[in-house]
Amino acid sequence: MPGTSKRMSHKAGLPPGSLVHIGKRKVEKTRITIMDYDGEKFQEKEAQTIEECFPFKDKPTVTWVNIDGIHDMDIIEKIGKHFGIHPLVLEDIVNTRQRPKMEDFEKYIFLVVKMLTCEQDQHEISAEQVSMLLGPNFVISFQERLGDVFDQIRDRIRTSKGRIRKEGADYLAYALLDAIVDGYFIVLENLGERIEILEDSVIENPTTQTLQVINGLKREMILLRRSVWPLREVIGTLDRGGSALIHETTGTYLRDVYDHTIQVADTIDSYRDMIIGTRDTYLSSLSNRMNEIMKVLTIIATIFIPVTFIAGIYGMNFQFMPELGWRGSYFVVWGVMIGVAGVMIAYFKKKDWL
Amino acid sequence: MPGTSKRMSHKAGLPPGSLVHIGKRKVEKTRITIMDYDGEKFQEKEAQTIEECFPFKDKPTVTWVNIDGIHDMDIIEKIGKHFGIHPLVLEDIVNTRQRPKMEDFEKYIFLVVKMLTCEQDQHEISAEQVSMLLGPNFVISFQERLGDVFDQIRDRIRTSKGRIRKEGADYLAYALLDAIVDGYFIVLENLGERIEILEDSVIENPTTQTLQVINGLKREMILLRRSVWPLREVIGTLDRGGSALIHETTGTYLRDVYDHTIQVADTIDSYRDMIIGTRDTYLSSLSNRMNEIMKVLTIIATIFIPVTFIAGIYGMNFQFMPELGWRGSYFVVWGVMIGVAGVMIAYFKKKDWL
Amino acid sequence: MPGTSKRMSHKAGLPPGSLVHIGKRKVEKTRITIMDYDGEKFQEKEAQTIEECFPFKDKPTVTWVNIDGIHDMDIIEKIGKHFGIHPLVLEDIVNTRQRPKMEDFEKYIFLVVKMLTCEQDQHEISAEQVSMLLGPNFVISFQERLGDVFDQIRDRIRTSKGRIRKEGADYLAYALLDAIVDGYFIVLENLGERIEILEDSVIENPTTQTLQVINGLKREMILLRRSVWPLREVIGTLDRGGSALIHETTGTYLRDVYDHTIQVADTIDSYRDMIIGTRDTYLSSLSNRMNEIMKVLTIIATIFIPVTFIAGIYGMNFQFMPELGWRGSYFVVWGVMIGVAGVMIAYFKKKDWL
Amino acid sequence: MPGTSKRMSHKAGLPPGSLVHIGKRKVEKTRITIMDYDGEKFQEKEAQTIEECFPFKDKPTVTWVNIDGIHDMDIIEKIGKHFGIHPLVLEDIVNTRQRPKMEDFEKYIFLVVKMLTCEQDQHEISAEQVSMLLGPNFVISFQERLGDVFDQIRDRIRTSKGRIRKEGADYLAYALLDAIVDGYFIVLENLGERIEILEDSVIENPTTQTLQVINGLKREMILLRRSVWPLREVIGTLDRGGSALIHETTGTYLRDVYDHTIQVADTIDSYRDMIIGTRDTYLSSLSNRMNEIMKVLTIIATIFIPVTFIAGIYGMNFQFMPELGWRGSYFVVWGVMIGVAGVMIAYFKKKDWL
Amino acid sequence: MPGTSKRMSHKAGLPPGSLVHIGKRKVEKTRITIMDYDGEKFQEKEAQTIEECFPFKDKPTVTWVNIDGIHDMDIIEKIGKHFGIHPLVLEDIVNTRQRPKMEDFEKYIFLVVKMLTCEQDQHEISAEQVSMLLGPNFVISFQERLGDVFDQIRDRIRTSKGRIRKEGADYLAYALLDAIVDGYFIVLENLGERIEILEDSVIENPTTQTLQVINGLKREMILLRRSVWPLREVIGTLDRGGSALIHETTGTYLRDVYDHTIQVADTIDSYRDMIIGTRDTYLSSLSNRMNEIMKVLTIIATIFIPVTFIAGIYGMNFQFMPELGWRGSYFVVWGVMIGVAGVMIAYFKKKDWL
Repeated sequence: MPGTSKRMSHKAGLPPGSLVHIGKRKVEKTRITIMDYDGEKFQEKEAQTIEECFPFKDKPTVTWVNIDGIHDMDIIEKIGKHFGIHPLVLEDIVNTRQRPKMEDFEKYIFLVVKMLTCEQDQHEISAEQVSMLLGPNFVISFQERLGDVFDQIRDRIRTSKGRIRKEGADYLAYALLDAIVDGYFIVLENLGERIEILEDSVIENPTTQTLQVINGLKREMILLRRSVWPLREVIGTLDRGGSALIHETTGTYLRDVYDHTIQVADTIDSYRDMIIGTRDTYLSSLSNRMNEIMKVLTIIATIFIPVTFIAGIYGMNFQFMPELGWRGSYFVVWGVMIGVAGVMIAYFKKKDWL
Repeated sequence: MPGTSKRMSHKAGLPPGSLVHIGKRKVEKTRITIMDYDGEKFQEKEAQTIEECFPFKDKPTVTWVNIDGIHDMDIIEKIGKHFGIHPLVLEDIVNTRQRPKMEDFEKYIFLVVKMLTCEQDQHEISAEQVSMLLGPNFVISFQERLGDVFDQIRDRIRTSKGRIRKEGADYLAYALLDAIVDGYFIVLENLGERIEILEDSVIENPTTQTLQVINGLKREMILLRRSVWPLREVIGTLDRGGSALIHETTGTYLRDVYDHTIQVADTIDSYRDMIIGTRDTYLSSLSNRMNEIMKVLTIIATIFIPVTFIAGIYGMNFQFMPELGWRGSYFVVWGVMIGVAGVMIAYFKKKDWL
Repeated sequence: MPGTSKRMSHKAGLPPGSLVHIGKRKVEKTRITIMDYDGEKFQEKEAQTIEECFPFKDKPTVTWVNIDGIHDMDIIEKIGKHFGIHPLVLEDIVNTRQRPKMEDFEKYIFLVVKMLTCEQDQHEISAEQVSMLLGPNFVISFQERLGDVFDQIRDRIRTSKGRIRKEGADYLAYALLDAIVDGYFIVLENLGERIEILEDSVIENPTTQTLQVINGLKREMILLRRSVWPLREVIGTLDRGGSALIHETTGTYLRDVYDHTIQVADTIDSYRDMIIGTRDTYLSSLSNRMNEIMKVLTIIATIFIPVTFIAGIYGMNFQFMPELGWRGSYFVVWGVMIGVAGVMIAYFKKKDWL
Repeated sequence: MPGTSKRMSHKAGLPPGSLVHIGKRKVEKTRITIMDYDGEKFQEKEAQTIEECFPFKDKPTVTWVNIDGIHDMDIIEKIGKHFGIHPLVLEDIVNTRQRPKMEDFEKYIFLVVKMLTCEQDQHEISAEQVSMLLGPNFVISFQERLGDVFDQIRDRIRTSKGRIRKEGADYLAYALLDAIVDGYFIVLENLGERIEILEDSVIENPTTQTLQVINGLKREMILLRRSVWPLREVIGTLDRGGSALIHETTGTYLRDVYDHTIQVADTIDSYRDMIIGTRDTYLSSLSNRMNEIMKVLTIIATIFIPVTFIAGIYGMNFQFMPELGWRGSYFVVWGVMIGVAGVMIAYFKKKDWL
Repeated sequence: MPGTSKRMSHKAGLPPGSLVHIGKRKVEKTRITIMDYDGEKFQEKEAQTIEECFPFKDKPTVTWVNIDGIHDMDIIEKIGKHFGIHPLVLEDIVNTRQRPKMEDFEKYIFLVVKMLTCEQDQHEISAEQVSMLLGPNFVISFQERLGDVFDQIRDRIRTSKGRIRKEGADYLAYALLDAIVDGYFIVLENLGERIEILEDSVIENPTTQTLQVINGLKREMILLRRSVWPLREVIGTLDRGGSALIHETTGTYLRDVYDHTIQVADTIDSYRDMIIGTRDTYLSSLSNRMNEIMKVLTIIATIFIPVTFIAGIYGMNFQFMPELGWRGSYFVVWGVMIGVAGVMIAYFKKKDWL
């Protein structure tokens, strides 16, 4: 989270619309892929230069230009010029510290969402910013690096599975959003498992690391929440916004994604409550531990301190101590000591400390 | 709760409208029962195939088709085709991870609610998803398994008790919702008893399990809350939504169910406060325990440590210790020890520790 | 609070409008009293049968029928039939687990409020449900048992004191609401005194019962809050609702009651903060106690353990211990011991522990 | 705060509009002062009877009648009759338990606000209720006792400083409100200083009184908050209410007071956070204290218990203990003891306990 | 924060519009700089008297008058007179305790914002109030002292970089706001680093100062929050307010700043959660410490107390103690002691305390 503002400050004072890539550069070379299709035709290619995708702008077919890598200002500027995109939008695309948002510029809609994935070791959620420009017959998507959650959509376009080849660019944008929100469920599943592991370990073996793990989970929760909450609004506005770019039939699908984001938000809230419960358990287990340590100390001390006192009595060197001379008094004293210890133990048994 | 997202992730990337059963399969074979009635006639049968219920669609009588088991995609698809249901609705029916919701498709209304019941051992709340399709003259309800809270409604239809036979399909849908919300009160009653038991046990015998029980109850509370809160909105929208499928007379009844859901939500809030109070009691009882343990240790130690010191003094082997030779000094020392102990005990009495 | 759902579950599944008395039966025999008045005339009688009050329905005078005891379904049903009351309203009247609410049926307004009183021993708040039917020229009030806060209103009607005899039925309904809200202030006063007593006892003498008392007060607070909060809305709707049954002049009076409910709600919030403060004080007094116990133990132990060690040294039986043979070494050792103890005590004084 | 409901309950059941003084009687004799002015003329006098101020009602000049002491029902009633004030307003004026509010009766506006001042010893905030009646050319203000924050306004009227003599009654009402809100800043300043003193004392010298001080401050905060929050609404409504009694030019000034109330509310929130921080510091300082006490005990005990054991060994009276007869073994034992103590001390140094 | 009300109280009772400088005087002499430009021309000068900037008011070019130092009432009054500014606005300009706000006076817009910067030692955030008057062709900005975040804007005007020379005064005002909000990111970055340092130190080396640092950070957070939250509203109102002074093209830029303020607010919320997490970690580390101390004490005490008792037994002086005379019994006792200690150690190993 602290990173959120890190590079942002480098831009302070620059004129608006200055294209400065904010964030870590995650890919070597920008990769541009184009998919162009309608109900009958389908064409897919990897472009070497951004100019290759310009002719598709005026074709009636639906065109999806996907750009992996947003550090090359040249490409972004050319797209901006050719498709007539507002400079502030271009600035937002290359700034990976955006909040999910949706802006309607009539000729196109600009969308920023966060794509969440789990790393291989499954113990870190990684977020990547995906920006989309939705025009009448094109979708241009910008990602920070290679690899995404859109492979099944590409297959559906290639194999003409489902409705996607029959619908317009708005349906394609919906499909991308849907895939991203579906990805949240995988992340939630991962988080849920880690919370369960945490809950078990807190009971069985609480350590000083536990609170670090809890704080770490809380932070990932915040990351997720900050990705999901604004998304609700984004999708809600898309649906109700009355943009001419969104067909009415797509609205039903958007409401479905909207329901999913609410479901994700609900689950996040449940998880948060569970984590707080775990924290309570951890803190009270610390108290319980202390109680147990104190009990051991108290039992040992209260049994032996009185009998040690008795031994001390008869270790005194007074010349006139009648008991010392009596036969059997040594064994009587042993008896008294065992008796005292027995009373103590009985007392602890009664108190349920043993 | 973690389960909420479990199977959901298996669907990531599939085209929308793909019928994939999400959730545990709870029944072997799908069971279809049909009740068809108007003010005069009544007919009830168990259908072997889903096609048997199709003719009822065009009859003027009210038809209630109840389907137990939603894992058979074939049946769901056929219903969808015959009754003209949107593919996304069918997808929602077979996905048991839905949030309660209501969608008005003009020709029919789609409802998702959660039916809560207590297991026999009374220590677990089990939730089952009930979906309903309300048409002009039919209600199709989908349940995850056999057994529900609708038996009294069936009796009322069979025996023509109350208004149910005189009213339309919307009244039937209301009656089903009413029965489900009434079921919440039974669950609340169960929860209330368990909270009372917990409150007693926290005072009498707090153990390390207590916090687990508290966290468990909090989780069931969340489950209930997540079932009830969206339901308020669902029923409120049904009442005010202005759908032609809901008659004005049914509105009064819906407001009654609405009041009940608010009552349930209120009770949940009270319970939550009670559980938080119990948690406070538990944590402070840990502190009290520690205090008691410390008190015992302190009393024993502060009585015996000084007198043991006195005994140590006269255990020294100096050649010139005048007291050692005096007659009676042994008994004087005993007296001093008893005096010191007495002062200590008086001090503790004053401090209210004894 | 757990009781809130208790009997409610017995009704699960019954058809709506079934008159089932929900709650404890608090009175043996239903008592019906009638007051009928206008500016000049006044008549008061206790009716033996409910039919006696029917003729008043069509008289132009204002009639107040008060019914103590709501377990007799027969009476309720007859009233319902004669005055044309909706079955669901009758069901609500006999269900004492209602939330305060107001429903406008055009011909009459239905009100449910909670009347709170303090028991004689002053340590329990008891809540009673009061339902009212406000018609153009009548108010029918239903109470669970004999005894209420309306005696001064009866006096004002009898003696024609104030405006009550000059105004209509809506003013009477206002007067009843006003008396109930005034009753809340008495309850608040009682609660305030108990909180003050609690605050004093927490500082002077915190016991393990304290937390039970705090939780008990919190629960009564919730009861009060649940009675008052919905009432705000009820009275606000009455005032702004635009019902023809409420005259404009009565609106000013209703706003006054509305202000009072806000004042009650405010005071409840203050009390809640005070109770939370008391809980903090209690918990920190536990820690303080522990500190004090530890201090006593530490002082005794750290003074006597070192000197006991010194005594132990000269209790050793080595043949070559030069000090043992020296004259006066016994007294030197005493001096050393007193010195060590003195240093310890000075240290504790510096630490402010003594 | 408990007092809030104290006297209130004495009124329960009385007819509305009954003039009963609720609150402590704070002044012996009611004092009535009149200021009458316009741009040119100015007149000031202390009235012996309330009738003296009646002629001013119909003069075109602005008249400010200030009444200190509201226990004399006779005066209040006469004002009510002469100026045509609603009985409920009169009831509110003499009830000092009001919440700040504003009511527009077209011919006049009724305002209730709380005037806060610091007592001489500066350790208690005292609240006084100020009611105002704002008419077309008069302001009547009611205070509980002599002494207020309006002296500078009186000077401005007398010396014709600022705009006050050129403006109407609404500007006078604004000026009074402004003076009251300015008074809140003085109270806040006082509170701020006390919080700073508290913060210092918590770190330097936490005592058991600290929590009482914290709870006391929290309570004064609540008092302030309850005075300020409704005031925002009151002033906001005055500004936007569209009353003919408020000129448009005064609106700008009211917005300025509105900003000030928001500033006061903001500062209260900050103070609340600071007090909560202090409470945290206090509670953790209790834990720190305990840790320190435990450390002292542990250091002393763990150094002396092992060496006392060694001394105990050679205090045994076995006939065959070879070490006892060896020369120098006494000194060897001393060396061992010092070594053990040294190891312990080194361990504590490593642990940073010394 | 306590300072917020400090000087404010000095003004209590003064007539509105009184120019009283509230706040610390931060600069010796007021410095006035003027920049005047349009697309072609550019002029910059430092004015000796405020009258030098008056001629620019009627020129068509955009003029930016920047005033460092607001303690000279004379200058403020002259500006007020010449530019026709409302007295209350002038009063607000010289009162540095303002909340960020925006007021539209049709002929000009008045803006108050907080400029935050980090001091050189990087451990304190310093806030400075910046007021702006935005007219049709001028911006007058008031700062408390020399030094600001506007240097890059001055460079852009001088070098005609970006759009600033082509746009009007509203764009200049936007640019100033943008620079101030960009400055917040630098402050956030600084805060983020300090929180990270805190988090590390809490785990590695928690001290009693830690809570002071946490409370200090929380306070700076509140300062930031109080600067940012109202700013959102300010910028939102500027954008949607429909003022003729704000061109439509500038609206897009304002929405961009708006997004940034939301991003800042989001980050503040995350930081707050992190700080609360740190506080939890700190408090639980106190408990852990106590546990560790107790463990050491318990281990030492429970090992040596029993064996010391055994030594005490054979230090008794009874004449008939058979063991004392046996050969080898000394070594047997040693063996028993070592055995007891071994059992204790094994027990602690099992408990995971060693």
